[in-house]
Amino acid sequence: MKIIKGGITAPKGFLASSVSCGIKESGRDDLALLYSELPALGAGVFTTNRIESESVVVTKRRIKRVTAQAIIVNSGNANCCVGDKGIKDAETITGLTGKYLGIDEDRVLIASTGVIGRPMTVEKIKRKIPRLVRNLSSKNGTRFSRAIMTTDTFNKELAVEFNIGQRKVRLGGAAKGAGMISPEMATMLAFFTTDAEIERGFLEEAFKDVIADSFNCISVDGDMSTNDTAIIFANGLAENRLINKKDSSYKKFFSALKFVAEYLAKLIVKDGEGAKKFIEIFVENAKDSFDARKVARRIANSNLVKTMIAGGDPNWGRIAAACGSAGVEINANRLNIYLGQKDICVLRNGKATNADRKLLEDIFKKRDILIRIDLKMGKGSAKMWTCDLTEEYVRINAEYES
Amino acid sequence: MKIIKGGITAPKGFLASSVSCGIKESGRDDLALLYSELPALGAGVFTTNRIESESVVVTKRRIKRVTAQAIIVNSGNANCCVGDKGIKDAETITGLTGKYLGIDEDRVLIASTGVIGRPMTVEKIKRKIPRLVRNLSSKNGTRFSRAIMTTDTFNKELAVEFNIGQRKVRLGGAAKGAGMISPEMATMLAFFTTDAEIERGFLEEAFKDVIADSFNCISVDGDMSTNDTAIIFANGLAENRLINKKDSSYKKFFSALKFVAEYLAKLIVKDGEGAKKFIEIFVENAKDSFDARKVARRIANSNLVKTMIAGGDPNWGRIAAACGSAGVEINANRLNIYLGQKDICVLRNGKATNADRKLLEDIFKKRDILIRIDLKMGKGSAKMWTCDLTEEYVRINAEYES
Repeated sequence: MKIIKGGITAPKGFLASSVSCGIKESGRDDLALLYSELPALGAGVFTTNRIESESVVVTKRRIKRVTAQAIIVNSGNANCCVGDKGIKDAETITGLTGKYLGIDEDRVLIASTGVIGRPMTVEKIKRKIPRLVRNLSSKNGTRFSRAIMTTDTFNKELAVEFNIGQRKVRLGGAAKGAGMISPEMATMLAFFTTDAEIERGFLEEAFKDVIADSFNCISVDGDMSTNDTAIIFANGLAENRLINKKDSSYKKFFSALKFVAEYLAKLIVKDGEGAKKFIEIFVENAKDSFDARKVARRIANSNLVKTMIAGGDPNWGRIAAACGSAGVEINANRLNIYLGQKDICVLRNGKATNADRKLLEDIFKKRDILIRIDLKMGKGSAKMWTCDLTEEYVRINAEYES
Repeated sequence: MKIIKGGITAPKGFLASSVSCGIKESGRDDLALLYSELPALGAGVFTTNRIESESVVVTKRRIKRVTAQAIIVNSGNANCCVGDKGIKDAETITGLTGKYLGIDEDRVLIASTGVIGRPMTVEKIKRKIPRLVRNLSSKNGTRFSRAIMTTDTFNKELAVEFNIGQRKVRLGGAAKGAGMISPEMATMLAFFTTDAEIERGFLEEAFKDVIADSFNCISVDGDMSTNDTAIIFANGLAENRLINKKDSSYKKFFSALKFVAEYLAKLIVKDGEGAKKFIEIFVENAKDSFDARKVARRIANSNLVKTMIAGGDPNWGRIAAACGSAGVEINANRLNIYLGQKDICVLRNGKATNADRKLLEDIFKKRDILIRIDLKMGKGSAKMWTCDLTEEYVRINAEYES
């Protein structure tokens, strides 16, 4: 497997484009289109928020029913909490896109991100659809990844190439953050494309497993979006032997997908609003993986842990307090906490080890912070990726104007 | 019932004192003592964190067994995650205090607050106990409330007087915040005194109910402390007719306790680290009160809601998103959200109402922000008090040196 250029348009038969249609006042591109020259298998993972965007409703309905061929994405408006109008608007936009693409509107999906509770400015979008379709190109992967950004400070994309039999297969991805990122679902928006030929069931299973182990392991602020959408398109143009069992081809495909998803998920955390540090949390030997996940999440979402890391003070007691308040069975007299790449033990069997303070300060000066928790209760484990909580985060979200 | 001066030493027979023993580098008072001239009934509510301070362990054990007469409180060190030494230290400190007070050490309780994972500097504390006992005075209620402060910017105390039959009864309280405040337990430290004569069972029940409805309804940052301790002493010196049934006397006592507890709980939120705004959240018509509480907490702990309020932008979609991610059954098409004292509806049956933006901006300019959620799912309700999340919060907690 090797990394190649091109992002989501690196795989064969995928085209993209973007335009500015004025949803965002900045004039930046805020409307993007991804298109597969052939109908593609689609699989998706969506927000579990009970309040969901009408765009999510429409896309979930369609992706189950038919092979998909395009997805139109707008940033600046979430198309959420707007009632039936939201459904109608999504249908109008995808309908017109389908018309210009010359495909059935049911093959056009939609994803939205932005302010909640404001009707979409459909006329503005409609006016730009012809140009959006006209501009489709296999060179626009990066443009696409830029147009879906909101508070992101850089675009996030990756593509890889690998062999299945004699055939070259490609897989690309693009994602956006950067706030309202919580671990209980897929993240805001992530799109994957591949020209691999793979059976629907295997595509769906691989995608679900990979998302669970990548985007579902990240947290910026613990706030869950109403619009999270992660989608993969597989159009089969690589003409590899069909992947229809869990053999070495499936494993290769799975590894490539995992590699790209993990890379993008980590980028979202690294570009978390105001983030200066990347924090990796491993919880081991919990009663089960469910408990492990709860502890890992509790630490990842602790404002006190995150501000401590922002400040660089090795006040690990806050980590211990977070562990104890995760709502899972913990034996305080067994808890071990390790910090940094060198795995310095600061708490052993619930008792401070008096680890060298200078050593701990050095760990907290690094950009990447590793936290390992050993609960000694069973065999469950989990990981989480998160970032620190800085004044900049507050500034971004306090100054954000809806 | 009327408000009187004196804080926790306002009731008959209660004395207090404080000294600086050098746990805190600032030289501020960091050791305080509360003493009842007669043995008193004690009731307590403690942290539910699985990692608990050794001071909490000792106090929990004693308060159940015997009538209590004193509590010694240190700030600057949590006496937590230090193993058996923590128990021994708590016993040494309370033992010496008991000796100088001339009472059994089992009648002396202890509460600690501060950095986790550092052994107590017992020698420093021991040296100051004689003076602490010598300085006991019924005029030191306010001094006591000051000595227990950590990142608090002002001391928190209140006392009231009311009649039971012909007798005057008094009740006082003191509490500290200001971070690591989460709604799943009693808050950091809160102490109540009363000279009421009341049977143990009724004292315990009243205290538990009042704490559940006051300190358990507040959140600053969603982080749960290892040291939370709320304690009430009732010494009976008012010589009222014994409260031993739920009659009008019980109700009077309960109202007075509730009044003082709510006042102190709200003060903790108002003095939340970096807080500029006070936020009151009411969730109504949830399936049950458990669900209502989960939704109220989710909103109270949402960084996006709290930074939005800090910024004064009426981006209420963040409130809707928080509701939907609380992990409880919600019908998105029934959700109503109201803002401000005038109860402006911004979301009706899941749909934005297009409320006047100027009106909403005015609501968000106020110091007190009211959020009311109507879920229309059943009859459960809950309230939460919280504060905004400001850059100042991050600064305080990033710059905090352990």
